[in-house]
Amino acid sequence: MAKVKVHVFLKPGVLDVQGKAVEGALNGLGWAGVKDVRVGKLIEFEFDGEDPAGEAKKMCDTLLANTVIESYRIEVA
Amino acid sequence: MAKVKVHVFLKPGVLDVQGKAVEGALNGLGWAGVKDVRVGKLIEFEFDGEDPAGEAKKMCDTLLANTVIESYRIEVA
Repeated sequence: MAKVKVHVFLKPGVLDVQGKAVEGALNGLGWAGVKDVRVGKLIEFEFDGEDPAGEAKKMCDTLLANTVIESYRIEVA
Repeated sequence: MAKVKVHVFLKPGVLDVQGKAVEGALNGLGWAGVKDVRVGKLIEFEFDGEDPAGEAKKMCDTLLANTVIESYRIEVA
């Protein structure tokens, strides 16, 4: 049984509208020093089977990430 | 200039419907060994100012997390 964490975030060149909204809100609340906000997803699960890292990569390519605009990073613990 | 990462995830007792949906989809695609899927948010930003960890905590309590149902973890690099 492996604990898998997948971080999914937009690729650097892609406009992150959710990040821009958060940045605007934080600036408006008085935190003028906040910049370059990026909002991503963190998917955690238990995996029972062979080769959790390889299977997680297949899951990302199939379902978890839109690889046209998103990158992902996999951690297995 | 500090790089701040905020992980926001639902508290353990709260039903994670998005996680359940991902779990059902992965199971249906043939990954029967996937269990306990939790989907959270990862917010990254640059912060220019004093006490980034303390300010990030205030940001979470004010805007980034709904502390009734969500927990958060702050990393400052």
